[in-house]
Amino acid sequence: MSERPLLGQLIDALRCLPGVGPKSAQRIAFHLLERDREGGARLARIMADAMTRIRRCCRCRTLTEQDLCALCTNPHRDGGLLCVVEQPSEILAIEQATDFRGLYFVLGGRLSPLDGIGPEELGLDLLDARLSGGEVREVILAISPTVEGSATAHFIAESADRHGVSATRIAHGVPLGGELEYLDGGTLALAFNGRRRL
Amino acid sequence: MSERPLLGQLIDALRCLPGVGPKSAQRIAFHLLERDREGGARLARIMADAMTRIRRCCRCRTLTEQDLCALCTNPHRDGGLLCVVEQPSEILAIEQATDFRGLYFVLGGRLSPLDGIGPEELGLDLLDARLSGGEVREVILAISPTVEGSATAHFIAESADRHGVSATRIAHGVPLGGELEYLDGGTLALAFNGRRRL
Ligand SMILES: [Zn+2]
Ligand SMILES: [Zn+2]
Repeated sequence: MSERPLLGQLIDALRCLPGVGPKSAQRIAFHLLERDREGGARLARIMADAMTRIRRCCRCRTLTEQDLCALCTNPHRDGGLLCVVEQPSEILAIEQATDFRGLYFVLGGRLSPLDGIGPEELGLDLLDARLSGGEVREVILAISPTVEGSATAHFIAESADRHGVSATRIAHGVPLGGELEYLDGGTLALAFNGRRRL
Repeated sequence: MSERPLLGQLIDALRCLPGVGPKSAQRIAFHLLERDREGGARLARIMADAMTRIRRCCRCRTLTEQDLCALCTNPHRDGGLLCVVEQPSEILAIEQATDFRGLYFVLGGRLSPLDGIGPEELGLDLLDARLSGGEVREVILAISPTVEGSATAHFIAESADRHGVSATRIAHGVPLGGELEYLDGGTLALAFNGRRRL
């Protein structure tokens, strides 16, 4: 009586998923309850775990539940190549589409002073320390070709230059304002191989 | 090391949602982790609760976490009108589109002897007991106009006849094989008002 029926609560809560409106939320709720309770229970368990335990890798700032992510601790990756991306999702896209075997660094955005996003917010101090360490030979900038993205790329290229690290930027072909993760694999692979020195 | 990264587990687990492929699963996971952890945590909590606690109402067989659902215990509903639907989701559709103020009974399917779905599986014994109780004046059959749906409707109409209860069926207009829950509200309301005696 006092509390809202759980089914209605579930339908409402499902609206937090991107692209899910009232009708889809109903459809998902009934699907799970009537056809896949086991899958729903498993998803709930993993989602709760993920929301509390996943944070940022201390070294590359990607999403992980460990101090260091699986890529940073993988001894088979080439620590001399460091690819800088804006978002963690872009690492997945590059891993799936290219044969890149180096490491990554996640900015989490682009320099945008008007929005209060400066070098600190993007972990550029951490990146500078990394470039000064002597291990990195080439830093590959996989940053979108917008005004802010280009400013960010030049900021990093200058830091690389100070430490004698070569800086390249993946070839254009990425549509302006386009997000790497939605690009088809072939285009992304071409852009990656066609990277040029800044 | 030994266990799969939690992010990958989350992306896989999201595939249990209807219509969610590998790309959407990634998009949802990153959206929740980077933009709505609170919503994700709340959804996980409610989903876990729903998967274990939601079962069937003892009286009408709809989905609820109570012994009796909110409709069956609502004193303002007219117990003399009983609408029989195939699925719990159809109750939501009828409640949203019509001004029906009676009660419901959920079959959970249609008679289909070849698939092992007989009167017991649909709770038709429970429905017969309900119709024999003297409270129900009219049973409204909101069952899809397929061969199996019509057989089910006639089975119930005969039971209603034995107990002196009038049986009606909602008007056609529902497309053959169409599911009530995806129908537009106006068509559903017309079909409901245009119900006829069997
Ligand atoms: Zn890392
Ligand atoms: Zn009920």
